[in-house]
Amino acid sequence: MSELLEKCTAAKNAAQLMISVPSAVKDNALEAIADALVECTGEILEANKQDLENAEANGVRKAMLDRLRLTPERIAGMAEGVRKVRDLNDPIGEVINMWTRPNGLQIGKKRVPLGVIAIIYEARPNVTVDAAALCLKTSNVSILRGGKEAICSNTALMRIMQKAAYGAGIPEGALNIIEDTSRETATELMRMNGYVDMLIPRGGKGLIKSVVDNATVPVVETAAGNCHVYVDGDADFDMAVKIAMNAKVQRPSVCNAAETLLIDKAIADKFVPIIFKKLQDAGVEIRADKAAMDIYADGVREASEEDWYTEYNDYILAVKLVSGVDEAIAHINKYNTKHSEAIVTDSYTKAQKFLNEVDAAAVYVNASTRFTDGFEFGFGAEIGISTQKMHARGPMGLEALTSVKYIVYGDGQIRE
Amino acid sequence: MSELLEKCTAAKNAAQLMISVPSAVKDNALEAIADALVECTGEILEANKQDLENAEANGVRKAMLDRLRLTPERIAGMAEGVRKVRDLNDPIGEVINMWTRPNGLQIGKKRVPLGVIAIIYEARPNVTVDAAALCLKTSNVSILRGGKEAICSNTALMRIMQKAAYGAGIPEGALNIIEDTSRETATELMRMNGYVDMLIPRGGKGLIKSVVDNATVPVVETAAGNCHVYVDGDADFDMAVKIAMNAKVQRPSVCNAAETLLIDKAIADKFVPIIFKKLQDAGVEIRADKAAMDIYADGVREASEEDWYTEYNDYILAVKLVSGVDEAIAHINKYNTKHSEAIVTDSYTKAQKFLNEVDAAAVYVNASTRFTDGFEFGFGAEIGISTQKMHARGPMGLEALTSVKYIVYGDGQIRE
Repeated sequence: MSELLEKCTAAKNAAQLMISVPSAVKDNALEAIADALVECTGEILEANKQDLENAEANGVRKAMLDRLRLTPERIAGMAEGVRKVRDLNDPIGEVINMWTRPNGLQIGKKRVPLGVIAIIYEARPNVTVDAAALCLKTSNVSILRGGKEAICSNTALMRIMQKAAYGAGIPEGALNIIEDTSRETATELMRMNGYVDMLIPRGGKGLIKSVVDNATVPVVETAAGNCHVYVDGDADFDMAVKIAMNAKVQRPSVCNAAETLLIDKAIADKFVPIIFKKLQDAGVEIRADKAAMDIYADGVREASEEDWYTEYNDYILAVKLVSGVDEAIAHINKYNTKHSEAIVTDSYTKAQKFLNEVDAAAVYVNASTRFTDGFEFGFGAEIGISTQKMHARGPMGLEALTSVKYIVYGDGQIRE
Repeated sequence: MSELLEKCTAAKNAAQLMISVPSAVKDNALEAIADALVECTGEILEANKQDLENAEANGVRKAMLDRLRLTPERIAGMAEGVRKVRDLNDPIGEVINMWTRPNGLQIGKKRVPLGVIAIIYEARPNVTVDAAALCLKTSNVSILRGGKEAICSNTALMRIMQKAAYGAGIPEGALNIIEDTSRETATELMRMNGYVDMLIPRGGKGLIKSVVDNATVPVVETAAGNCHVYVDGDADFDMAVKIAMNAKVQRPSVCNAAETLLIDKAIADKFVPIIFKKLQDAGVEIRADKAAMDIYADGVREASEEDWYTEYNDYILAVKLVSGVDEAIAHINKYNTKHSEAIVTDSYTKAQKFLNEVDAAAVYVNASTRFTDGFEFGFGAEIGISTQKMHARGPMGLEALTSVKYIVYGDGQIRE
């Protein structure tokens, strides 16, 4: 039996047992995991050192090395994250509603685990801990498949978590990591129908595309974010500057950062010089349409059609002048990835129109797109940000890791 | 441009416009559709006659001919179904909850359409009307791809519905049928990422397997039902007989009918002869395990391992004796398709255990599995019964055809 099939089989069996594990046992296990991570800091750093050495030998680029590197502080942070997950309310078992039918049947809609959740991600060992903790909290079994660059760190982290969790009463097989990091095995995992109830890819475009193309198990697509800020003619200027800057430069590498700024022609003459100067002072490269360049062209590059589609994740911003909220909405709905979109305006009508007509997971009036995040939304956790419309949309907290089951109480009802 | 791409493009554009169509316009359109179906009965029957003639010439079997055949009564029934959908509450626009964050951001979770829903189904013209009406009611655009045997009926029905709906103010492109019924085009439809937000297969195992294997767009898997009734040692005998009979024989061809009866050994000596006789009197073929045959073997065939997996959809029932609720649950979780499962018992503890531990969309105590149905659950409609855990589980009413969007009201918030 292959490693994958063996672990999927164990996972499926454990999923059945997880249904009966009380909340308190799960919380104790999370506590034990947090303690163990801190206690085993030396062991984790040793494994991580091996990954870092291999990565350097293979010429892995610096940004990836940074994400791969663990320190005692980062390990303590991971443990702290696990404790925060422990402290959240357990959504499992909640009966969302219950009603009685005319024939006397009482029907309740109860929140239950999804079962087995597979997560495919890149070389970020923190995801190993994070994903395992969120799945455990929601009585789901996790099958993790991380990037090959982090395999030593990931297996060490998993070994430590398994020992702690199983020691605290979690059924064996509830936490799994696939040690074979070949592409073929990843593809096989995407096709384990009957074993995997949900697959979440966490990572760059290439990974997500590969999952969407190859998976036959149910997938939640995450994270590509081509987000827009539209500064309307009725915007408060200071607020518009503040929001546009924040959405672009506060952390350009993340999916909820803005990639295109749309500016109402009605205020472009005054607004463009102010915001372009500020953006350039912050080190942002501007790619603007001709109309904007007619106002301010110094150091600005002309945008191509390609730019409207691009998620830079970098200090680059596309800028386009539009003739008002309708053109802004049309542009966004054509080019966006349905992630996060903002309008800055003091017009009630235009704000409502934007909220209604823009097709995205999160639509903002007078706030930065950077708030699309499970923690900022108050969910207390996040397994990813869904950009599809089925099952979960936007930041996925604990509830997104649950399914429902109808429980029906009868007293002999049959169908006539 | 192919018919498929043309219609998908029109559908995507219409989906954007559908967002702004008020409830009253949708309801008027549904009313207009119902009226038009009745008025155009002659035209529909004419098209249906063509399908029936082709089907007979191609040697299509009688059961399929029956499903294919339309009559004035059946058309009136379809129109009546559309009026019932019109009368349901519109779920679109509901703000499910709204909260304020410490920074003052007000975040609301609003119910929105999924967008474009594709439905692939077999030779049942009633699905054409039913699916189009449910999608329209929920502001979704439908792309229907029915079986080739019903193509004349389906195109006639669609032409009539389009004329009525567009005349009542629904944007053109909101209702679509794919006239090219080739397998290749169906497969292409399953891979129209960026155009199709949800794909629902409605039909037999072969169709569903083909969709699961080939689709890259998000899918809701429906309908295979290997359902069980477990008669516990603490069951009321009369109730157990009534429920077991109802679950098997009231309508054996449907997915929520029982396929296996599990009987507690504690009462088998008394219960087996009674229920076997009744089942045989009702024309049911029994395939039992050895233990049951030791009690009653007359006309009973021995069950094979294969039988435990089989959805007969027919007057056939597999029967197995079990040593109590634990073995019943283990058997069900091993062989079922996560559809509908019932226990008959007067034991509070065993009832709760069964409800908690059986993994299925609907779990019953002392009622027939036959109630798993959008109408019987009180949803007023049903687009199918989901047997997957993501997005929707069990009977899918209007809410299953919706997504959510976070709407965020700020007053200048930026992320620090």
